[in-house]
Amino acid sequence: MTGNTFGDIYSITSFGESHGISIGGIINGFPSGIFIDEDFIQKELDRRRPGQSPFATSRNEGDKLEIQSGIFEGKSTGAPIGFIVKNNNQNSKDYSSIKDIYRPSHADYTWDKKYGIRDYRGGGRSSAREHIARVVAGAFAKLFLKQFDIRITAYTYSVGEISIDYCDFSEMNNPISCPNINKAEEMMQLITSCKSENDSVGCVVACIIENLPVGLGEPVFDKFPAYLSHAMMSINAAKGFEIGEGFNLAKMRGSVANDSFYNERGKIRTKTNYSGGTLGGITNGENVDFKVAFKPIPTISKEQNTVDNKGRETIINVQGRHDSCAITRAIPVVEAMSAIVVMDLLLKNRLSKN
Amino acid sequence: MTGNTFGDIYSITSFGESHGISIGGIINGFPSGIFIDEDFIQKELDRRRPGQSPFATSRNEGDKLEIQSGIFEGKSTGAPIGFIVKNNNQNSKDYSSIKDIYRPSHADYTWDKKYGIRDYRGGGRSSAREHIARVVAGAFAKLFLKQFDIRITAYTYSVGEISIDYCDFSEMNNPISCPNINKAEEMMQLITSCKSENDSVGCVVACIIENLPVGLGEPVFDKFPAYLSHAMMSINAAKGFEIGEGFNLAKMRGSVANDSFYNERGKIRTKTNYSGGTLGGITNGENVDFKVAFKPIPTISKEQNTVDNKGRETIINVQGRHDSCAITRAIPVVEAMSAIVVMDLLLKNRLSKN
Amino acid sequence: MTGNTFGDIYSITSFGESHGISIGGIINGFPSGIFIDEDFIQKELDRRRPGQSPFATSRNEGDKLEIQSGIFEGKSTGAPIGFIVKNNNQNSKDYSSIKDIYRPSHADYTWDKKYGIRDYRGGGRSSAREHIARVVAGAFAKLFLKQFDIRITAYTYSVGEISIDYCDFSEMNNPISCPNINKAEEMMQLITSCKSENDSVGCVVACIIENLPVGLGEPVFDKFPAYLSHAMMSINAAKGFEIGEGFNLAKMRGSVANDSFYNERGKIRTKTNYSGGTLGGITNGENVDFKVAFKPIPTISKEQNTVDNKGRETIINVQGRHDSCAITRAIPVVEAMSAIVVMDLLLKNRLSKN
Amino acid sequence: MTGNTFGDIYSITSFGESHGISIGGIINGFPSGIFIDEDFIQKELDRRRPGQSPFATSRNEGDKLEIQSGIFEGKSTGAPIGFIVKNNNQNSKDYSSIKDIYRPSHADYTWDKKYGIRDYRGGGRSSAREHIARVVAGAFAKLFLKQFDIRITAYTYSVGEISIDYCDFSEMNNPISCPNINKAEEMMQLITSCKSENDSVGCVVACIIENLPVGLGEPVFDKFPAYLSHAMMSINAAKGFEIGEGFNLAKMRGSVANDSFYNERGKIRTKTNYSGGTLGGITNGENVDFKVAFKPIPTISKEQNTVDNKGRETIINVQGRHDSCAITRAIPVVEAMSAIVVMDLLLKNRLSKN
Repeated sequence: MTGNTFGDIYSITSFGESHGISIGGIINGFPSGIFIDEDFIQKELDRRRPGQSPFATSRNEGDKLEIQSGIFEGKSTGAPIGFIVKNNNQNSKDYSSIKDIYRPSHADYTWDKKYGIRDYRGGGRSSAREHIARVVAGAFAKLFLKQFDIRITAYTYSVGEISIDYCDFSEMNNPISCPNINKAEEMMQLITSCKSENDSVGCVVACIIENLPVGLGEPVFDKFPAYLSHAMMSINAAKGFEIGEGFNLAKMRGSVANDSFYNERGKIRTKTNYSGGTLGGITNGENVDFKVAFKPIPTISKEQNTVDNKGRETIINVQGRHDSCAITRAIPVVEAMSAIVVMDLLLKNRLSKN
Repeated sequence: MTGNTFGDIYSITSFGESHGISIGGIINGFPSGIFIDEDFIQKELDRRRPGQSPFATSRNEGDKLEIQSGIFEGKSTGAPIGFIVKNNNQNSKDYSSIKDIYRPSHADYTWDKKYGIRDYRGGGRSSAREHIARVVAGAFAKLFLKQFDIRITAYTYSVGEISIDYCDFSEMNNPISCPNINKAEEMMQLITSCKSENDSVGCVVACIIENLPVGLGEPVFDKFPAYLSHAMMSINAAKGFEIGEGFNLAKMRGSVANDSFYNERGKIRTKTNYSGGTLGGITNGENVDFKVAFKPIPTISKEQNTVDNKGRETIINVQGRHDSCAITRAIPVVEAMSAIVVMDLLLKNRLSKN
Repeated sequence: MTGNTFGDIYSITSFGESHGISIGGIINGFPSGIFIDEDFIQKELDRRRPGQSPFATSRNEGDKLEIQSGIFEGKSTGAPIGFIVKNNNQNSKDYSSIKDIYRPSHADYTWDKKYGIRDYRGGGRSSAREHIARVVAGAFAKLFLKQFDIRITAYTYSVGEISIDYCDFSEMNNPISCPNINKAEEMMQLITSCKSENDSVGCVVACIIENLPVGLGEPVFDKFPAYLSHAMMSINAAKGFEIGEGFNLAKMRGSVANDSFYNERGKIRTKTNYSGGTLGGITNGENVDFKVAFKPIPTISKEQNTVDNKGRETIINVQGRHDSCAITRAIPVVEAMSAIVVMDLLLKNRLSKN
Repeated sequence: MTGNTFGDIYSITSFGESHGISIGGIINGFPSGIFIDEDFIQKELDRRRPGQSPFATSRNEGDKLEIQSGIFEGKSTGAPIGFIVKNNNQNSKDYSSIKDIYRPSHADYTWDKKYGIRDYRGGGRSSAREHIARVVAGAFAKLFLKQFDIRITAYTYSVGEISIDYCDFSEMNNPISCPNINKAEEMMQLITSCKSENDSVGCVVACIIENLPVGLGEPVFDKFPAYLSHAMMSINAAKGFEIGEGFNLAKMRGSVANDSFYNERGKIRTKTNYSGGTLGGITNGENVDFKVAFKPIPTISKEQNTVDNKGRETIINVQGRHDSCAITRAIPVVEAMSAIVVMDLLLKNRLSKN
């Protein structure tokens, strides 16, 4: 009810601030009897962790998952899965310089006004460290979805003005998981030059979900794209979402945009997939593909005009090491939130028919 | 839980198929003691009604609101507000031609597979007539929000390839509510020519929400943009959502994209509003502006390849009068869903502080 | 969220006041593909209707069910089932005498203070006519449960000081559904004499649920008895609930109260059933039996001390025909709420295991 | 949705098994800006802890609260409050003797059937150690309610056949918090003798909530007594609930049972309080009083007939130290669940009126 739970049947309820004791959560609705590969979950967490590539900040938190409950003799029991990830660096920095000042395009001002109090250390609850709980819940969901061979792959679609011009997943083994090796090089150069200029840059993450069954999505309000877009737009810095051809579809004619059905060896398929794998808000068995736009990371080491918490105008210049692009850290979170959505809708769909 | 309720504290639960007895719903969480202007609500419904302009279908259903409960002596009582809108045309047409055939890019196939049964008459539950319940709930929400002078205005941003090049609300009094009269003319010509070609075309609705207080949005999962995007992407044919500069922000540098704070006669404001009125998922007091992309209406009177419910390939050609663009009917629904989101978050925000 | 929805996966959201246009509701989560016997549902409604026996009031409302949606060609479609039951007598009475006065032990005072406004006609939303929506949702649930041969039987356990001393369902064909014909006669005499004295009397409804599978109930907060008790205590005038031996168990020793397991032709059974069919909050396959205590109907044609809405002390004497015991009308509601609980928990339980 | 969350606006989501790493939870909806007295919360936990009196088991777990988040500089921030309480004794015992055997009147059998797997160590998730999370959430709620001077006092009403014959809170300073010192002595002797006989005995906890405002409770399904009874019946071993005169009201006449209103120095009061502080499911400003019946603790060191997980009949005799009466440990849990209910309904009620 108050925004810290996502999912209905399969759900994650999370807690934790950047510089508190720990980040953690409780997973509910994970069925009993599933073998839990903790190494896989830790690896998913590691993908999100800062310091994994030159394109992310060098703070190395470790981010060691400590499962508290819900697993017995290696298997899920159906009981809630509590977990924590300790914050190791919580006392390492002096935040007094930003204590009373609102960083532009950050959550500082709105959070302070909403709650009347704010844990300013490292962004507190508004920090991207909160995504840790999402990645853990997403990793559990992936373990569940693996049974049905459902695969979720997020990748870099664009950084700044540079977009991929083709998509070849065999080229994706690069630090920004971009399936277009030439563009990947350009993008990484752009990120590096932003860093050296103490600036940051936006990006678009694309994602493809393969092997979905027909029938996922709960009309009329929890249509697949609606629920998925809720998930994506809840990620820090997300500013846009589109599914299939998205905003391009708004420019097209129906005679072009409609995805014709045909019969492929007994299976109903569509010749094109402009819709992005859903019709009437329900998956149609084609791949779901979507994009999420992220704004530039607002923390930059440049002088900016702002105000303090008394409303007095002032200048801020946030020093220290910061990511200059969200791309490497957004990718695992986009996958994680997708996995939660798919698992929740898959479980719900089991109840549709008698 | 099963997708027919939207909102937590202020909520609408809806029912009804295009050709059933009625479309209706139950509004919960509307506070007691508010004067209910039923004429206003009926007028909102009339805005959505087909046949209101040459750019929409000529089916004239009447769509007369019948409130069943929750109002006493002109005022809300705090009890649930039940309402129905009768379907007058439910037996007027022969649907046997599409009974067993899946219309391309429609909900027919997915609905049939999900539930194993489908009310094929006029699209059944997947019809845009379902939006009636949303418009009613949105109109009630607008009555509530009026107290705080919160205004919600949706308008035509683009039709097909034609977009507005400025936004002047004084020019908006045209059949497609486009705040750019020259472009409005072009757009209407495009719609007319699509109609004459038995084709349809996509569009983008933009919306601005003015006079919001600081503090709306419930981190971390029900951030204002996340919740709003859920609402928008649940509208029939919606394929994309962006807030503020949206996908453009992904191309920008932080030093440009950051919205600097300043003090305007004692009020904290931002010089730019690329973020679209939210920071950290919480409203910052600037206008919220966002866009929703709609695909072309899939019903076109052209021959299309498709399959029937046995998977046999066939040709379909849906005759009859159809909208050729969703624009006029999408606008009131975008406003309605916005109003529901704002009211629900406004009520939730009352509980944030001690 | 605001108390007008019951159930999570299978749910009823209700609306309506005693003297408004209609009482109605929306059923969600009813799976598609189930044949809907509308006659059965109407008969369940008829059981609750006043004027069905000399022991209930003679107001004859008809209470004709009008299903609005969710059923196509005789079967459920998975879409929400909207329904209304019109109020025929809504203008028939003069309520000005109680308009400003709080009837003792009624909802008048608390409702007025909570909402600041109250539909005083016939109790408004606090009237037992609200139970109509429950009975409809319960009847649908019974149709679902019939597939599994799950049977729910509520009956009169006591009226005033008179309790049954045995339970023989073959004797239950009497106006108060009491499985003990001698006691039934005494109880009916008591009700008649209360009526003639312009007084009322309390009662206890017992209920047995047969043929439940093992596994229903969702620990730790939605244990079967917890959820069932919520359902029962939400019925008008309910003041107590117990399952199995209930309050008697508090007097017993463990060595006596424990229900020993044994093997009955391959099935695990318990020799006694003091627990009432649940262990650890989960059904164990034995019959669930429970009791609900109802206070005397507070409307009596006697002078009573009370206050008006200005707090002035006064005398009230409510004239007219009233039930003198809730028993005949409570029985179908107890069954209906039980059916909703069982169906919801049965659907939830399908998601427990992988 | 899956039973591990209680509360809507103010809520606790819990996790943990008796012999896992920790018991913990996440509190949501606690408003920002409230001073958090951690000592008070720890003391509440200590009240529930085993080994606090001769009438409870001697296992001394420590039960040290470790708050993870949601508090900054001594005050609540509005963010979720994560907490854990480590299990210190998790490896201390050999459970192989009950690993495959179902203890009579325990959750072993039903849990095993529901989930197909069960953490048998100390009852796993079905252990009363789960109540720890409830007590923590209840203690936070008490801190909130203290502002309004709302007081919640649970006490021993009966043990076995022995009930109090008056209630004098000045006599309550005894190990079983019984406000009737003579009866308290008898009850304690009974518990002692049960212990020496390797047997156990049931009990009734009564509770009084003072200083409630008028207006709490959300009709029609979340009436105060309905919601409270849900809370109480979700406590381990609870088998019955009644509010006010409860089952006695079923024996009474309306002319006796009705609580007459009068004006006490400008405040509307009732002369009697048979209803137990609620009318129409909404608090009326009188004290809420209710009772909860608990069955005897099923773990007894006596030979009992049972079956194993293959269905084979066998004899079980559970050795070790066990509580012989739930009374001392149930009291703080009854208070905690009451506090959660009151706080949640108090917050909800803020949204009733415009």
